[in-house]
Amino acid sequence: MDNKPIGIFDSGIGGLTVLKELIKILPDEDFIYFGDTARVPYGGKSPELIREYSEEITSFFQKKNVKIVVDACFTSSSIALEHIRNKFKSLDIVGVTEYGARSASVVTENNNIGVIGTKTTIKSGAFQKVLQEINSKINVFSEPCPLFVPFIEEGFVEGDFITQIIHHYLDTFLDKNIDTLLLGCTHYPIIKKAIGKTFKDSFKIVDCGKETAIAVRNILSREKRLRKKSSGKKLTFYVSDDTESFVQNASLFLGQKIKTASLMFPWE
Amino acid sequence: MDNKPIGIFDSGIGGLTVLKELIKILPDEDFIYFGDTARVPYGGKSPELIREYSEEITSFFQKKNVKIVVDACFTSSSIALEHIRNKFKSLDIVGVTEYGARSASVVTENNNIGVIGTKTTIKSGAFQKVLQEINSKINVFSEPCPLFVPFIEEGFVEGDFITQIIHHYLDTFLDKNIDTLLLGCTHYPIIKKAIGKTFKDSFKIVDCGKETAIAVRNILSREKRLRKKSSGKKLTFYVSDDTESFVQNASLFLGQKIKTASLMFPWE
Repeated sequence: MDNKPIGIFDSGIGGLTVLKELIKILPDEDFIYFGDTARVPYGGKSPELIREYSEEITSFFQKKNVKIVVDACFTSSSIALEHIRNKFKSLDIVGVTEYGARSASVVTENNNIGVIGTKTTIKSGAFQKVLQEINSKINVFSEPCPLFVPFIEEGFVEGDFITQIIHHYLDTFLDKNIDTLLLGCTHYPIIKKAIGKTFKDSFKIVDCGKETAIAVRNILSREKRLRKKSSGKKLTFYVSDDTESFVQNASLFLGQKIKTASLMFPWE
Repeated sequence: MDNKPIGIFDSGIGGLTVLKELIKILPDEDFIYFGDTARVPYGGKSPELIREYSEEITSFFQKKNVKIVVDACFTSSSIALEHIRNKFKSLDIVGVTEYGARSASVVTENNNIGVIGTKTTIKSGAFQKVLQEINSKINVFSEPCPLFVPFIEEGFVEGDFITQIIHHYLDTFLDKNIDTLLLGCTHYPIIKKAIGKTFKDSFKIVDCGKETAIAVRNILSREKRLRKKSSGKKLTFYVSDDTESFVQNASLFLGQKIKTASLMFPWE
């Protein structure tokens, strides 16, 4: 039994879709969420900078004495996971990229997997690497979808606009015969239904957040480090800028309203 | 005569549209451009953070001994201009917001002006304030257009997609009888033609970058601080992240290719 909280971070607000899945699967745990809203998005930044940022944030969680860190940022977990694991050897660190990939490798029947994400995530080749380590017969087809995040953040999550953009990016998979699509960005679960509808559910969609939450439960359960009983005060939120706008926009991603968030500057 | 360079900054690459106009109008001057690509976009950040960032950058230009600083970032010049002028009293600082507004006030004949920009720029009310100080009879109609920047950065600068988004944001001006539209964001001059075409040139479009360049020439000329003869090596570029991607993407905004950019971290 381990009553310490679980730490989870993202470059911004999107990681709340991963927290949502963690809360569902681990309802008795306490969570500390950090969103690096002053420096969002990580998607276009250099690998060096993303490693530096991820290290600063992990250091914050170490001070907060968490029992496990969930790197819910796809860009960070594609590029910086090994780096922070090396820097914080005593900490358990779980990345959204790896567990999404593991799940997709189980779901696929014809070994043709499509992967979508930000430019940096796709360019990193992280999904490709993990998938082919699991099964070298898997064919990975990747497509960066840089306009999905701004569209979702502007509330275009269904209707004509988002359908056109979905076609623009995903039609490339039509002749690849994929049977599984990996959503490689925290925002994408919000348009999971719209994607399914656009392609008449002709492939299965893997939501990495859900798979990561299951993995966290398995790790804690195996090591007998699950909290036995809820403390009642479960969720604490930190951001690096504009707490008000974070609180206002959280419900689209978390599926519930939040009351407050505090400022935390990882660079200090 | 003053042979010192002109400093110009933006949150990212967009300010190159302003530099382009400066080069046209002041072909003999030397320029130092800084793009804060590690912290782009400023558009969604808090006013406190934008003032802090703008101050750090102005301090860099002071050390570089420039003769004038052009704040080519609309978010910064809407929110932080007074702050940096107070902090750096010995420096001449020119903001894109004010000269765009001055020009629009001259161009309009019916005193109905539309203003478009990022959420933070529009929310700041900076254009409204300047315009009504110039002429209290001017009616300002504002609309934030948060999807224009990602669209332009993805290369959608003409065609169906951008036309639809232009309609989505700008149709609100149709019943306002505007005769002038102020482009309140560095990226927007790139879709100036597309906007004109969509509305069959039914209003005049004011490009703040061009007006700012004219203002800089007037200030330097009046004070006899223009460079007499070109030095030959005119343009120096600094960014706070990923010099390579900046160099690759510069030509869309600057209208010419650049060879190199150096790293500069304003926070150090």
